[in-house]
Amino acid sequence: MGLLVVGSLALDTVATPFDRVEEALGGSATYVSLSASYFSGPVYLVGVVGEDFPKEYITLLENHNVDLTGLQIIKGGETFRWSGKYHYDLNVRDTLLTELNVFENFDPIIPDNAKKAKFVCLGNIDPTLQMKVLDQLESPQLIVCDTMNYWIEGKREELLKLLKRVHVLIINDSEARLLADEPNLIKAAKKIKNLGPNTLIIKKGEHGALLFSDDTVFSAPAYPMEMIFDPTGAGDTFAGGFTGYLHKTQDLSVENMKRAVIYGSVMASFCVEQFSTKALEDLMYLRVHDRFTDFLRLSKFDEKD
Amino acid sequence: MGLLVVGSLALDTVATPFDRVEEALGGSATYVSLSASYFSGPVYLVGVVGEDFPKEYITLLENHNVDLTGLQIIKGGETFRWSGKYHYDLNVRDTLLTELNVFENFDPIIPDNAKKAKFVCLGNIDPTLQMKVLDQLESPQLIVCDTMNYWIEGKREELLKLLKRVHVLIINDSEARLLADEPNLIKAAKKIKNLGPNTLIIKKGEHGALLFSDDTVFSAPAYPMEMIFDPTGAGDTFAGGFTGYLHKTQDLSVENMKRAVIYGSVMASFCVEQFSTKALEDLMYLRVHDRFTDFLRLSKFDEKD
Repeated sequence: MGLLVVGSLALDTVATPFDRVEEALGGSATYVSLSASYFSGPVYLVGVVGEDFPKEYITLLENHNVDLTGLQIIKGGETFRWSGKYHYDLNVRDTLLTELNVFENFDPIIPDNAKKAKFVCLGNIDPTLQMKVLDQLESPQLIVCDTMNYWIEGKREELLKLLKRVHVLIINDSEARLLADEPNLIKAAKKIKNLGPNTLIIKKGEHGALLFSDDTVFSAPAYPMEMIFDPTGAGDTFAGGFTGYLHKTQDLSVENMKRAVIYGSVMASFCVEQFSTKALEDLMYLRVHDRFTDFLRLSKFDEKD
Repeated sequence: MGLLVVGSLALDTVATPFDRVEEALGGSATYVSLSASYFSGPVYLVGVVGEDFPKEYITLLENHNVDLTGLQIIKGGETFRWSGKYHYDLNVRDTLLTELNVFENFDPIIPDNAKKAKFVCLGNIDPTLQMKVLDQLESPQLIVCDTMNYWIEGKREELLKLLKRVHVLIINDSEARLLADEPNLIKAAKKIKNLGPNTLIIKKGEHGALLFSDDTVFSAPAYPMEMIFDPTGAGDTFAGGFTGYLHKTQDLSVENMKRAVIYGSVMASFCVEQFSTKALEDLMYLRVHDRFTDFLRLSKFDEKD
């Protein structure tokens, strides 16, 4: 059985202090799917685009063994567009434009071949839609979920209902503090795990990530990057690498979750090295493996005899 | 041969959202010495206090095998006083009062028994004074140095001269960015290593620490703390644990430096659990060792074969 990914597909216009790209492939489902495709397949993508969505992007996804049966192409409709501008330190960005277009009335319909999927990654979309997806699945075994400040503040009740059914929640540090209403991350993590998810991953950007699973806390380092070209999609790429690796290995032990966090970090580190999805288009798996080894080296120390 | 520590001794009045302490033992040399004392001795402390410096603090330091031959007690003088107030999230503090008193005219004189010291930790004081210390030493083998924004901005030239003689520089992330005039930490680290220190440690508070030594980068996790009572002295305590462990093991390999960074982190994690130096006064070495093991567990993952 494949891995089900639900989320947005977008055309992104992104400016950084170094360069600019227009109408590039973007969206949470896109990044999650491409990233996961390096570990296992097929990936069943459920999302929506307009008729203007370039054919080359369809081909790109298909070439990565992404099954597009569940991709709705709305006749005469326009694809979701997002535009943003990053500041000099790349940790701050301004959203210049958000045109939901066909995404505004997105109703995720899971095709029959994907309803049996055991592994699901719910990209960052309205928790009401994420819930609708879960309602159509037969017996999911691992539900990974992403969300953001916008939903935590605007659709808190719906999100809390959803979290009771989620196994792994992936959010960043400010989202964790907001969701738990608690400034201390460790206390916040405990509170969030009490809301439902057995496993919580807190992404901290250039400071790595924390995994909380059962009574285990695991601290994953960040890859030391001298140059970040475009941080767009890094979080989705992390979720894709994490879920893809778990799907490939079919091992949900805490030890394997740690490895999955590292593979998520590996994929995110590639993602930000180029604009848009470029770095995820022709990646050699050998490079993924090599960078995993770099992460091992980066954080390994031993007790003296 | 013992370990030489030079820096400030102070009486600290600290308020946090949880509690408040008045005229407690403080100062960089104090924290460094107490922390290092858990690893090796004797620690030769060079600093200055006024006649008002409480006898009980002298006794406390002596009980930790801290040799006070180099402690100047100025007749009729008043000890350096600092007062600060921490905000709710403890990452921000306001300095309410700084009375240099006898520290204003501090002239560090290294006693004969300490001039032969091979391991030196220069606490955060004026780089001109740090240089004066080095000029009195016979043949130091490891010079560890701390500094801060105030000196980076106000005494840049003197600091740059000093750095050519320093082996290990320990600073926090904002100081590293300021010193290198570079927002990317990895690039900043390269620039700083070109200024002299073969090894650079960047402390990132709740995000752990980075070690740059030769071509190695090592990422040390932070201990997951649910409650921080008082962050005062955590950086000095880190430096003390780091240098103390290296002095104990007499091994300056990169692998051992990694362990030293973890022992520094271990000591800092204890430091912030109580007000002032309280947590460093009666610590059992077994607890230090146990927490080292916690750090191992926190960051360890394996390649799946």
